[in-house]
Amino acid sequence: MPVVTVRIAKGRPVEKKRALAKAVTEVVAENLDVPSERVILIIDESDSEDWAIGGVLHADKLPAR
Amino acid sequence: MPVVTVRIAKGRPVEKKRALAKAVTEVVAENLDVPSERVILIIDESDSEDWAIGGVLHADKLPAR
Amino acid sequence: MPVVTVRIAKGRPVEKKRALAKAVTEVVAENLDVPSERVILIIDESDSEDWAIGGVLHADKLPAR
Amino acid sequence: MPVVTVRIAKGRPVEKKRALAKAVTEVVAENLDVPSERVILIIDESDSEDWAIGGVLHADKLPAR
Amino acid sequence: MPVVTVRIAKGRPVEKKRALAKAVTEVVAENLDVPSERVILIIDESDSEDWAIGGVLHADKLPAR
Amino acid sequence: MPVVTVRIAKGRPVEKKRALAKAVTEVVAENLDVPSERVILIIDESDSEDWAIGGVLHADKLPAR
Repeated sequence: MPVVTVRIAKGRPVEKKRALAKAVTEVVAENLDVPSERVILIIDESDSEDWAIGGVLHADKLPAR
Repeated sequence: MPVVTVRIAKGRPVEKKRALAKAVTEVVAENLDVPSERVILIIDESDSEDWAIGGVLHADKLPAR
Repeated sequence: MPVVTVRIAKGRPVEKKRALAKAVTEVVAENLDVPSERVILIIDESDSEDWAIGGVLHADKLPAR
Repeated sequence: MPVVTVRIAKGRPVEKKRALAKAVTEVVAENLDVPSERVILIIDESDSEDWAIGGVLHADKLPAR
Repeated sequence: MPVVTVRIAKGRPVEKKRALAKAVTEVVAENLDVPSERVILIIDESDSEDWAIGGVLHADKLPAR
Repeated sequence: MPVVTVRIAKGRPVEKKRALAKAVTEVVAENLDVPSERVILIIDESDSEDWAIGGVLHADKLPAR
């Protein structure tokens, strides 16, 4: 531990994920006073037809679908 | 919040997901007295070789595989 | 399956949870065409100091704290 | 219940998953004194660009990338 | 990784949890060919009013409540 | 979305959680190019008898228990 899970919309490039993993791990390690090597981070991507806010799928909110 | 996660077997069409998201969000909003716009719903699909009941993969229970 | 997880703010009475579990299970079963006996529902409560929107703990948004 | 989730790196063949599901379900049932038919097991696979230890994506640690 | 989460009904003594953690970790390590030191296991307990099967809270199924 | 879950050992004071929520939300918003108001963060605490590394409960590794 700590184990951090970040649920995001699908489709970001690996460069974004790399930067996200590095930055989140650093602030978690700093704020919890644990070595960064002990921080596990998992990125969970959701397709636009697999999540909703207010009961409306994200796929149905996108301009071109 | 609230954040609702629904884990289902993979393969349902978007129409089913759309109806599911709408219906679940409505009853959650009603029962918890929150505006539906604040309800986040995530559908997590599992492939038939990625879940088991009684230790048997769902893929091994299907008639044609 | 299906397995439904509902993350909510802590503090609702059991009557609310009972009604929530019943209503959500019914609409999940209907919309996914599964018997309601196969629907597992888990309520995860979070204390007001354990969740945040926009980086502000819910505890810090409450009027009397 | 119980509901067991096993998060693993993507890419193992179905034979490995089959054996994993069987073995984990058995020890969970034994240790918790529940019938194995009541144990639900979910395997969540993560792509190598979707998890990190120490802030470094697993994809960036692999020899050939 | 791997990260294993076991969701169980609340109330088991630490001896049961200790045996569960040991046994599950061993079979996960064996079946996935990873050193057991890399297996993280989390036990998530749910109160009887916080989970339901078939829309009925576990608390409402218990004999004395 | 995004929805961030941080699983940590139980016992940190609210000041630590406040700083953690603020810092993690900021870096998530920056790196994913989303407004911070859309970032939901959940802190899940685990008791020392409810998590293990290498099959040994954290409670059994603590000096005074």
